[in-house]
Amino acid sequence: MKTITVGTDDHSYPVHIGKGLRFRVESLLPRDYQKVLIVTDSNVGNLYLNDVIHAFTKGQQVHVYIIPAGEQSKNLSEFEHIHTFGIEKGLDRKSLIIALGGGVVGDLAGFVAATYMRGIDYIQMPTTILAHDSSVGGKVAINHPRGKNMIGQFYQPKTVIYDLETIESLPVREVRSGFAEVIKHAFIADRQLLFTLLQEMESMEHIDPGLLQYALTRGIEIKSHIVEQDERDQGVRHFLNFGHTLGHALESELGYGTLTHGEAVAIGMWFALKVSENIFSISLPVKPYEYWLQKMDYPLNIGNVKLEHLIDLMKTDKKSTGGQIRMVLLKDLELPKVVSLHDEELRQMLRIFIHGGMKE
Amino acid sequence: MKTITVGTDDHSYPVHIGKGLRFRVESLLPRDYQKVLIVTDSNVGNLYLNDVIHAFTKGQQVHVYIIPAGEQSKNLSEFEHIHTFGIEKGLDRKSLIIALGGGVVGDLAGFVAATYMRGIDYIQMPTTILAHDSSVGGKVAINHPRGKNMIGQFYQPKTVIYDLETIESLPVREVRSGFAEVIKHAFIADRQLLFTLLQEMESMEHIDPGLLQYALTRGIEIKSHIVEQDERDQGVRHFLNFGHTLGHALESELGYGTLTHGEAVAIGMWFALKVSENIFSISLPVKPYEYWLQKMDYPLNIGNVKLEHLIDLMKTDKKSTGGQIRMVLLKDLELPKVVSLHDEELRQMLRIFIHGGMKE
Repeated sequence: MKTITVGTDDHSYPVHIGKGLRFRVESLLPRDYQKVLIVTDSNVGNLYLNDVIHAFTKGQQVHVYIIPAGEQSKNLSEFEHIHTFGIEKGLDRKSLIIALGGGVVGDLAGFVAATYMRGIDYIQMPTTILAHDSSVGGKVAINHPRGKNMIGQFYQPKTVIYDLETIESLPVREVRSGFAEVIKHAFIADRQLLFTLLQEMESMEHIDPGLLQYALTRGIEIKSHIVEQDERDQGVRHFLNFGHTLGHALESELGYGTLTHGEAVAIGMWFALKVSENIFSISLPVKPYEYWLQKMDYPLNIGNVKLEHLIDLMKTDKKSTGGQIRMVLLKDLELPKVVSLHDEELRQMLRIFIHGGMKE
Repeated sequence: MKTITVGTDDHSYPVHIGKGLRFRVESLLPRDYQKVLIVTDSNVGNLYLNDVIHAFTKGQQVHVYIIPAGEQSKNLSEFEHIHTFGIEKGLDRKSLIIALGGGVVGDLAGFVAATYMRGIDYIQMPTTILAHDSSVGGKVAINHPRGKNMIGQFYQPKTVIYDLETIESLPVREVRSGFAEVIKHAFIADRQLLFTLLQEMESMEHIDPGLLQYALTRGIEIKSHIVEQDERDQGVRHFLNFGHTLGHALESELGYGTLTHGEAVAIGMWFALKVSENIFSISLPVKPYEYWLQKMDYPLNIGNVKLEHLIDLMKTDKKSTGGQIRMVLLKDLELPKVVSLHDEELRQMLRIFIHGGMKE
């Protein structure tokens, strides 16, 4: 087991990474809890829920709330239902919520914990590769029909327990989605990790376990380091949005779930790299990245998206202020920079990207 | 104008108290805002909304969202609608929300601000006496059908602007409701204020303006002092719950709006005083307080409440943990103490209180 500590204004917390940690949850908690609510989804529940339940051996009351798997569950209605369930089961301010699952479960259950009686303890137990990113840093939220993560909060977990065995059962599409965030961390902060991944990965189906653990640990370290500097997303944390401005717009425009989050971000990074080359007149490893995207079977043809819809959506992105579109670009590898772009400037580049680049 | 500074972990903020401050809002803000959303209710909107809108003279976009007056508006549906309205109007992370109204507006608009894009600036402009209390300290929330303020957060405003002219138009029932919290502050922290109010107030209809300003300023000072010591309600802030355990239960059992919040708390304090005398074998000014309640026309006959319902509701109160009922009692004036009581102990005292004391 490897442990990384994340220091935030409110408290520091450990991120434990290792195999079989779900069987040891009880010993990894910061204190004893009499009542525990595990929130998970229909997929993860079938696989690991019993292991976690049985890890509680001291007679704690353990309740379970299962949401339908998928981004669609990250809505106000599920939020309300979990609150109601918690009240019915008598959860109080000393109770614990466990988010067992991917980003959707983590964001939703975390936001419930953040607002239940004005905030109770919760821990993240990510079970996807994508969630190596979302489980660290305390961003919790639900979606609004008009935009992703529009209603939420910053609320740090008490502990993150990342059992690497739980990602072994992931469908390949989930692995692919998650690796987009790993590559993102590499682009903005670790060129060695970037070239290692671009060169050594052969397919999403068979990733060398050593390489995987190295990549995830580095990803969490990079994320933690940034969160520590800027917990409330007012400075360097924006860099983590690399690829996300177009990515979020694509997810919203195509309907959540058509592309996975990571697939959308992978395309968003591709676009951001091209914009970066254009704006800063530099050269970035766009071709090796394109080659990697193809080799790894990322969906690159996004069909008939409406250019103006994407522009509008990019403007409503939480990171945008005053109607301009803010994107994270790279002045070089490991050198991200937030840039404000005018509609027209972006429209042209996006038109070329969609009608040229993406249909190659 | 008098200014009290409240220091919290996140930031310090001023509470401005004085006459005509609504005309000077712009100059009292911490910085310029391009977009402003004023949330108010149908009563307050008719009276003071235009004054506040016209106080913005620099071409800011000022939007208005009006909720129906009353506790019923503090629900998840209004919460969602204000979010939608904000997104439609293009509010971004640099925008400001103004809560213009009483506690309902402040709690609801504050919780929207706390969660809009994970938190934007807001200011409180209380227009009731009750809100002298609720506008300071950053407790924001909405109600759940199973309990008051069950979904919420701690999120401090950037400024509180308390225009004493806005309370001159209050219906007497609102004045009465608000004075319960003033008396509460006196019981837990200022015996001189307590005896001044008990002795010098003749009716709720005609309160000496000097006495009113003195009482409100002291109330805010007491509240601020407690919030600074315990922002997240884990210690001394519990003392502010004096009278609220039974108060909340009464509001919920009778249906929100049957009794005002303050009327319910006034009864709750009466009960808490009797329990205090009983538990600590001491003597408190219960009779002068009863006499004051009657002179001030507080509703003291609460009809056919169900004892067991009240007990159950007191157990679901956010302050309760592990099924016991926690109440704030007084070991003496200015000496509050949180005490855990067993069902049975409380049931007996509550039975006597309801069937004896309350029908005198």
